[in-house]
Amino acid sequence: MSTIPGYTHGTAAVARSPITVADFGPMCAAALFGDDDVAALRRSLPVVSAHADAILDVWYGFVGSSPALVATFAPSGGAPDSAYLTAVRRRFRQWILDTAGANYDQPWLDYQHEIGLRHHRIKKNATDAAHAAAIVPFRYLAPLVVPVTTTLKPFLARGGHDAAVVDQMHAAWVKSCLLQITLWSHPYVIAGDF
Amino acid sequence: MSTIPGYTHGTAAVARSPITVADFGPMCAAALFGDDDVAALRRSLPVVSAHADAILDVWYGFVGSSPALVATFAPSGGAPDSAYLTAVRRRFRQWILDTAGANYDQPWLDYQHEIGLRHHRIKKNATDAAHAAAIVPFRYLAPLVVPVTTTLKPFLARGGHDAAVVDQMHAAWVKSCLLQITLWSHPYVIAGDF
Repeated sequence: MSTIPGYTHGTAAVARSPITVADFGPMCAAALFGDDDVAALRRSLPVVSAHADAILDVWYGFVGSSPALVATFAPSGGAPDSAYLTAVRRRFRQWILDTAGANYDQPWLDYQHEIGLRHHRIKKNATDAAHAAAIVPFRYLAPLVVPVTTTLKPFLARGGHDAAVVDQMHAAWVKSCLLQITLWSHPYVIAGDF
Repeated sequence: MSTIPGYTHGTAAVARSPITVADFGPMCAAALFGDDDVAALRRSLPVVSAHADAILDVWYGFVGSSPALVATFAPSGGAPDSAYLTAVRRRFRQWILDTAGANYDQPWLDYQHEIGLRHHRIKKNATDAAHAAAIVPFRYLAPLVVPVTTTLKPFLARGGHDAAVVDQMHAAWVKSCLLQITLWSHPYVIAGDF
C-alpha cells in the first residue's frame, strides 16, 4: 500500500477507464510508440529516480513563473494553495517513476483516467480538499509536454549514456507524455468524439 | 485568391475562432514557443517547400499503413475515398508552407479553428463532399504529432544546416504542431473546459 496520500494506482478506489488495452494499441501505433520506447523509458528509470526531486524543482519553478499555470493551484484572484501544491508534488514524483517504469497495463490506464478526472472539473480539488481553480484548462495540456520533456533531457544525460541513447530516452518520454495527455483529456471531450 | 479547393485561409468563408491572439499568447508560453521558434520555422521554409511532395509521400504512406487512420478517409467498412485523399493532400501541402511561414495571427487562428471543425463531425467531409467516417477520433490527434515531426526531421537536415540548427527547426515544428492540435481540438472539448 502506497504511503502517498491520494495515490490510488492499482487500488479499488480507481474506476475502470473507458479506454482499454485494446483501444490503447492503435493510439501507441499512431505515436510510433513501441517496445524500443518501453525499453528506453525503463532505461531512464535509474537516472530520473536519482534526480526526481531536482526535476520537480525545475518543473515547479516553471509553473511558478507562469501566471496561467499558477492559477490552477489557486482560488480565483487568490494565492496558491500550498498544501495542494505539496500534495500534488508527491504524486507528481511517483508519476515520474511510473512513466519510466512503463507498465502500461489496464490498471495504469485506469489511473491515467483518474488523473484526467483530477485535472477536469469532475474531480479537481477533491483528492486534497484544495482551494483552487475548478479545472486545469484543456488548452495547456498538450503545450506542457514541451517544458516537461525539454527540461528533463539534461537530467537524462546524467546517466552516463551515449547521446544517441539519451535521444532515444527523450523521444520515448515525449511519446509517453503525448499518449498520457490524450488519456487525461477523456473527461474534457464530448461523449462519442474521443 | 488560392487555387487550392477548400483552402479558405484569410477569406470571408472562415468564421472567427473562439481563440484570440491574446488567448494564444499563454498557450505559446506554456509550450516554450517564442521568437526563436518562429525564426527556426521560417528558416525551415525553403527546405520543406523544396521537399513538400516527398514529405507528403512519407506521411500518406504512414496513414496508408495504419488501419485506424485509413478509416478516417473511408466510409465504414469501405475503401478510402480517393478524391477526398487527393483534395486533403493539396491542402496538407499548403499546411506545411503555412506552418513554416509562421504568421500566427488572428486569420491563422481562425483557419486553425476551421481545420479543427473539418476533423470534427461538425464539418468533416463537407468541404470535399467526401464519403468517409464522420469524425477523426480525438485520440489520434496528439499521437500523430510524433510521426509527422519525426519523419520530417531527415528532410529538415537536407537544407545544409548544422545539426544544432536542424534540432532547433525540429523542436519548433514539434511545438507548433502541439499548439495546432490543441487549437484543432476546440470543437471536441466540452463548452467551458477549453
